Amino acid sequence: MSKIFGIDPGTAITGFGVIGVDAGKFSFIDAGVIRTPAKQALELRLETIYADLSQLIKEHNPDFIAIEQIYFANNVKTAISVAQARGVAMLAAVHGGGEVVEYTPLQIKQAITGYGRAEKKQMQDMVKILLGMNEISKPDDAADALAIAICHGQTLATS
Amino acid sequence: MSKIFGIDPGTAITGFGVIGVDAGKFSFIDAGVIRTPAKQALELRLETIYADLSQLIKEHNPDFIAIEQIYFANNVKTAISVAQARGVAMLAAVHGGGEVVEYTPLQIKQAITGYGRAEKKQMQDMVKILLGMNEISKPDDAADALAIAICHGQTLATS
Repeated sequence: MSKIFGIDPGTAITGFGVIGVDAGKFSFIDAGVIRTPAKQALELRLETIYADLSQLIKEHNPDFIAIEQIYFANNVKTAISVAQARGVAMLAAVHGGGEVVEYTPLQIKQAITGYGRAEKKQMQDMVKILLGMNEISKPDDAADALAIAICHGQTLATS
Repeated sequence: MSKIFGIDPGTAITGFGVIGVDAGKFSFIDAGVIRTPAKQALELRLETIYADLSQLIKEHNPDFIAIEQIYFANNVKTAISVAQARGVAMLAAVHGGGEVVEYTPLQIKQAITGYGRAEKKQMQDMVKILLGMNEISKPDDAADALAIAICHGQTLATS
């Protein structure tokens, strides 16, 4: 079995989702979010994201760490905030070991639903079905991180 | 004497500049850049920036670490690239100790030249003069990092 650790980075909330892949079949292992307080200094928020991700990666010891790529056309401020969190998430991934892989939002949507413009609800339903879960993972960021992990699982299964 | 470590973050090239401040007088201590190869995977480039900055911060043991804030109106791709590097630079700053301070490009220009729209050449000349150096620091990123450090030095001197 391969273990994949998915990360949906963000300064306020970073989602993570861990899945197992065995002979093309996926299983749910863990999912959740890391939240940081808006009032805290940025460097401390980034440190929390790094430290918590490092701890989770150490705990799960994944074979692959899959991180979403960022493409923001509209909001540069949001893009910068996400990119800073993404930087420390990648660092936690490198320090934790495991191969780091990146996917665009389009690739993730296509891998999960076969359709690049899938809506959030469709994505979450498919994540639930693919992992044999009873309920959709909450909050959205945890479900998104599972979707990123499944995307790499699909790549593994078809390569 | 207070020691200030300035950082001008970037994925391809990160500048650093270290200055001393004593009774409102500035002195040059060190400056240079960290380069990462474009062909390398992003996570490894970010790790190099983090590791090299961590080593430099450890070596200089600064009282303050000053980092430029990012405001890109035009190029989101560049903004994302710089922000990822900035994330790991802030992490190196937190892990290295010392108080982290942030300044906007406008604040830095105003602190150095008294003029928010100063040109690069004017800035570099003022950095050279303020630090009593014989030549302008090369490359630009090293001079920029010294300017960020001086900006915080001015704040210290006038507060």
